[in-house]
Amino acid sequence: MNERALLEHIIESTCGTPGVAIGPGDDMAMLDVPGASGNAGLLISVDQVVDGVHVHADTTPWSAIGRKAVARALSDVAAMAGRPLASIVAAVLPPGTSGEQAAELFDSMRLAAEQYRAPIIGGDMAFHHAEVGPLTCSVTVLATPTTNGPVQRSGAMEGDVVCVTGMLGGSFEEGGAGRHLEFEPRIGEAIMLQAILKERLHSMIDLSDGLGTDGMQLLARHAPLQIRINASDIPCNEGVDWRRAVADGEDYELCFCAEGDLPEQVLDCSIARIGMVVKAEEGDERRMVVIDGEQEHDISGAGWEHCS
Amino acid sequence: MNERALLEHIIESTCGTPGVAIGPGDDMAMLDVPGASGNAGLLISVDQVVDGVHVHADTTPWSAIGRKAVARALSDVAAMAGRPLASIVAAVLPPGTSGEQAAELFDSMRLAAEQYRAPIIGGDMAFHHAEVGPLTCSVTVLATPTTNGPVQRSGAMEGDVVCVTGMLGGSFEEGGAGRHLEFEPRIGEAIMLQAILKERLHSMIDLSDGLGTDGMQLLARHAPLQIRINASDIPCNEGVDWRRAVADGEDYELCFCAEGDLPEQVLDCSIARIGMVVKAEEGDERRMVVIDGEQEHDISGAGWEHCS
Repeated sequence: MNERALLEHIIESTCGTPGVAIGPGDDMAMLDVPGASGNAGLLISVDQVVDGVHVHADTTPWSAIGRKAVARALSDVAAMAGRPLASIVAAVLPPGTSGEQAAELFDSMRLAAEQYRAPIIGGDMAFHHAEVGPLTCSVTVLATPTTNGPVQRSGAMEGDVVCVTGMLGGSFEEGGAGRHLEFEPRIGEAIMLQAILKERLHSMIDLSDGLGTDGMQLLARHAPLQIRINASDIPCNEGVDWRRAVADGEDYELCFCAEGDLPEQVLDCSIARIGMVVKAEEGDERRMVVIDGEQEHDISGAGWEHCS
Repeated sequence: MNERALLEHIIESTCGTPGVAIGPGDDMAMLDVPGASGNAGLLISVDQVVDGVHVHADTTPWSAIGRKAVARALSDVAAMAGRPLASIVAAVLPPGTSGEQAAELFDSMRLAAEQYRAPIIGGDMAFHHAEVGPLTCSVTVLATPTTNGPVQRSGAMEGDVVCVTGMLGGSFEEGGAGRHLEFEPRIGEAIMLQAILKERLHSMIDLSDGLGTDGMQLLARHAPLQIRINASDIPCNEGVDWRRAVADGEDYELCFCAEGDLPEQVLDCSIARIGMVVKAEEGDERRMVVIDGEQEHDISGAGWEHCS
C-alpha cells in the first residue's frame, strides 16, 4: 500500500471542518479555541514510535525510546514555530514487560516532555496479548502559535531560498551516533527564525522521512513550482553523501522556504542555503531536483517510505 | 506487572503542573486554555484499541474496529459530562494491510467522530515492520466542559446513591451481541444528568474495565469510604449474572454517585440505583462490596485487568 495515497485520501475526506483553522495535512492541526478572543489557536498533532520501525527495542535503552517518542512529536511543534503546551502519551507494551522497563519508558517521556515545557497531562497504557507485540508509543502534543502565527508547510513562493538547519543523513545508522535518539527538536530555533524573518518565512517542515519526501510538502499541491537543490550545498553528516542526506530521514532538522536576507545561524544552529524555488516550465510538474555537476536527479518522494 | 501500580507511579510523578486544572488519573485531563477568559477549559484524553486485547482484527470488520476506537475515546468525554470538540487519531497497521482495509478503518473513524461532533483534525499512520504486528489505534479527543464544569471521578460522598446507566455484563462475549463494538458513548445522557442534578452529581466514570475496577475510582484515594452494592439491583444483560456484570468490562455505561432525588431515566436510557456510599468502619479500608442475600463479596478491583 502507498502511504502517501492513503494519507491524501484521509486529508481530502476530513478537510473543511468549522472551527478548524488548519486541518489534517500539515505538521499540526490548529483549532480555534472556544472562549478565546483574537487569533488564539491551539496547535495539536500526534506522532508514533514503533519498535522495528523507528527504534529497535531489543538493543536500545527504553529511556532513549521514551525520549525519542516525545522529541519526535515536539519536532512537529518546531515545524509550526509553535510553543509547546502539554502532551498526552499512550503506549502498548509487549508481553513480559517488567515494571522497571515500563517505568523507565514513562519516566523518560515525562522528563523529555518537561524539558521542552510540554508536561504530560494524561495517557493510556495497554499490554499486547499476542505472543509477539511490538512496543508502540503515541504522543499527542498541544502547542500555541506565537504572536506571529503558525508557519504552515506549503506556502513556498517562486524565488524563495530553500534552507535546512544542521546536518543531514546517516542518523538512523546501526552503530552510528544515534542521532535519531538524541536530536533536539528545533523549537527555539524555529521561534527565533520566525521572529527574525516574520512574513518572509513562507513555509517550513521538519525532516523525519527525508528531504525528498518531506521537502515536496513545502510546495502547495497544485502549485506549478519546483525546488532546485545544489548537491554541494547540502550539509551532510560525516561519512554520508548527498544521496543519503536527502533519503535517509530521521534527522528532525527544519527545512524552510523564505525570501530576502537570511541569517547564517540561529541560536547555535547553522543554516544552509541549499536551493531555490522556481517556476515549473510549461508542461512540467511540481517536483524536487538535485543538481550534481552536469546531472539533474529527481528526488521527489525520495526518502523513508515507512511501508518498505 | 501490575497495571494499576504503574499508573499510580505515573500519576504521582506528573501531578501539580501549572495551567493543568485536572491532571492524569481522571477520565480526561483539563487544561486552562491560553487566551481564554473565565472558566473555559479544554478537556483532553487518549484511548487505545489493540488487536488481541480490545478487538479481534481477524474476525471483526475493520469498520467496526475504527468505530470502537473512536467511541471508546468518546466514552471518556461522557464520563466528564463534556462536549466533544475534535479528535486526532493514530494507527499502526499490520504488514500486508491493503489500501481498502486501511481506508475502511480510517473512514469508520471519521464517520464515528463526525457523528459525535468530534471531527478528526489530524493523525499519524505507521506500518509494523515485524512479521507479526497487531493493529493498534490510538484516539485523542478534545472536549469542552459545559457551563456546569466537568464531573470528576473521585468526589463520592457519604450517603450518595450509586447508579449505573443501561445494562452490564457479557459485552465482549464471543458470538454475543457485539455490544463492545456497537455501544453509544453516553455523551447526551451525561450532559442531561448533570443539567438535572448540577452540584448533586458528585462523581462519574465510564465502565470499561468493569464495575469492581472502575467503581473504586469513584472514591478519593484516601477517603475512608466504601461502596455497598445490592446484587439484585445490578442491571444485568440477558444470560449474565451479577458476578459477570461487575467483572466483564467493556460496557461503556456510566457509573455515578449523587445525592438526593434521581431520575429513573435520561433520554432513552434507564438509570439503576445499585448501592450507596457509606463510611468505612473504624480500622476498615476503602473498598467496594456486593451484598448477595446473606453474603458480602469484596469486588474492589474486580474487573478486566488488561495485563492478564
